[in-house]
Amino acid sequence: MREKVVAVDLGGTNLRLGVVDSAGRITRRRRLAMRAFTAREDLYSWLAEAIGDFIEDGHGRQGGRRARRVSCDRQGPAAVGIGFAGPSDAERGLIYYAPNVGCMTDLRVASRVGKLLGLPTFLENDANCAALGEHWRGAGRGARSLFLFTVGTGIGGSFLIDGQVWHGEHGIAGEIGHTVVATGGPRCNCGKEGCLEALVSATAILKAYRRAAGRAVRMPAELTAKMVFDRARRGDAAARSVVDRSARALGVGIANVFHLLNPELVLIGGGVSRAGSMLLGPAVEEARRAIFPPLQGKLRVKRASLGDDAGLLGAARVAFRHLSGI
Amino acid sequence: MREKVVAVDLGGTNLRLGVVDSAGRITRRRRLAMRAFTAREDLYSWLAEAIGDFIEDGHGRQGGRRARRVSCDRQGPAAVGIGFAGPSDAERGLIYYAPNVGCMTDLRVASRVGKLLGLPTFLENDANCAALGEHWRGAGRGARSLFLFTVGTGIGGSFLIDGQVWHGEHGIAGEIGHTVVATGGPRCNCGKEGCLEALVSATAILKAYRRAAGRAVRMPAELTAKMVFDRARRGDAAARSVVDRSARALGVGIANVFHLLNPELVLIGGGVSRAGSMLLGPAVEEARRAIFPPLQGKLRVKRASLGDDAGLLGAARVAFRHLSGI
Repeated sequence: MREKVVAVDLGGTNLRLGVVDSAGRITRRRRLAMRAFTAREDLYSWLAEAIGDFIEDGHGRQGGRRARRVSCDRQGPAAVGIGFAGPSDAERGLIYYAPNVGCMTDLRVASRVGKLLGLPTFLENDANCAALGEHWRGAGRGARSLFLFTVGTGIGGSFLIDGQVWHGEHGIAGEIGHTVVATGGPRCNCGKEGCLEALVSATAILKAYRRAAGRAVRMPAELTAKMVFDRARRGDAAARSVVDRSARALGVGIANVFHLLNPELVLIGGGVSRAGSMLLGPAVEEARRAIFPPLQGKLRVKRASLGDDAGLLGAARVAFRHLSGI
Repeated sequence: MREKVVAVDLGGTNLRLGVVDSAGRITRRRRLAMRAFTAREDLYSWLAEAIGDFIEDGHGRQGGRRARRVSCDRQGPAAVGIGFAGPSDAERGLIYYAPNVGCMTDLRVASRVGKLLGLPTFLENDANCAALGEHWRGAGRGARSLFLFTVGTGIGGSFLIDGQVWHGEHGIAGEIGHTVVATGGPRCNCGKEGCLEALVSATAILKAYRRAAGRAVRMPAELTAKMVFDRARRGDAAARSVVDRSARALGVGIANVFHLLNPELVLIGGGVSRAGSMLLGPAVEEARRAIFPPLQGKLRVKRASLGDDAGLLGAARVAFRHLSGI
């Protein structure tokens, strides 16, 4: 087996690429602005070109000039692993719905991009990649079972048993963001009311703060969830109440996962988790209160430790595992 | 391996016993009234005596006279499997909390009763037993993964992967009844608000109906959930609205399980499930609405088919598996 793969993280804003070795080191990186597509084939060829260029540039291409491909002493990657947002069936290589790339449905990214590249190419949901990355090299090392919440623009989730993703029958297991915790609560982008995502995501926090603060508070045009946390820290009552509600809802989500899946470890990752103890402190407190008393002490919650690299490492892990047939 | 085991279902009202053969046939049964205990040892010895008497009566004991034990041609059971309500860690043989037998904590039923009986004795949560029974001989046959809701006085749940219980790290996985679906909703016996159990169980249905109907409606002293369903069928508006709310909440629970665990099959068992299509029709409709559109058609929900026998068969299954080392 060759010792490196290309990992791809197809996010909402950026396409991130990395060369990853079998020890989980990212030896080269690239970041491109993501764009939306209206035709599947355009997405496939754009992706194949971006990945192909990235590979070639590691083999002697200088600046804009293309050199001959792959010299014998500098072996190319053995495979490509792609992490992708949206409900997908990784085992069948099918993305049901891709909100990040123009809301297309039924994408076959792995097989089509793989064919264009001439490399074995594998797909995995981005939350599952992040969990695999954290289990391989981050805060999840050694956990027999873990559940990762990714709290960002949306909410994702992933459940690992013995380091393997539990995909479920149609590949969508782990979709904690669209479990309902507050029937009749705020409306989610998915159309339902009271989804965890409608209470805890960055989008939900911003929306709730704009409503709670009303016209009394000056709002910058580019208000971010981070600013809401900063305002809460400085004593802004509306921000404080929004953060508290989100933290409590996250706590309910954690307790629901604990009762239903009972993992050894719960990890919290994603951009919003950078708010740190302000979010996680009250969330864990709420979760413990909600758990059967004899088990309250057994809940273990940690922040994910790899940041954005978790997704790249997980995508690489998927490719390495396919190569070695695990 | 000898070909039969004794299965025990330690319920809230009855202690049910059965001799079960390796093909999943219940060849003999007994039902005793359950009682509460204040001391662990009293429970252990009462259980051991009840099981021991049941075994002996299959080997020549007539009426009240005790005959000599076990003749060579009528072999006794090889093991005992006990299904038990309450959060427990079956793999470690520990019951954290036993609401059905006087609310004692930290029970070691399997090891203590097994010692008194002189037979290998194994423990499993009652909802897990019901799921194992349905997977072995009932509506769950052949499902790669299934989630069973037991909707009765309380709500239990069980998640099977390849016919094996997913116990989780501390044995409590599957506790769907105490996942929160309606933050701020009705108070549950566990002290939280908005647990599924506080919306869908027989207890919850009765409580909500008493409140909704108020003094305008004649209430029999022994009102049951079945009567509420019957009244709803006959057009009682209060009963109708309670049943509708419960069905929708069950639908939310089903959708949450589908998003989080994505099982091939969802089974609904327990006493309240006998209400049939009046509960399950709107529940499945609500669940489908709540699921990602591309996957709505993939949800499979069925009624459990074995009734009370599921628990006995599952307890027997546990004993057979332990005996054969699976």
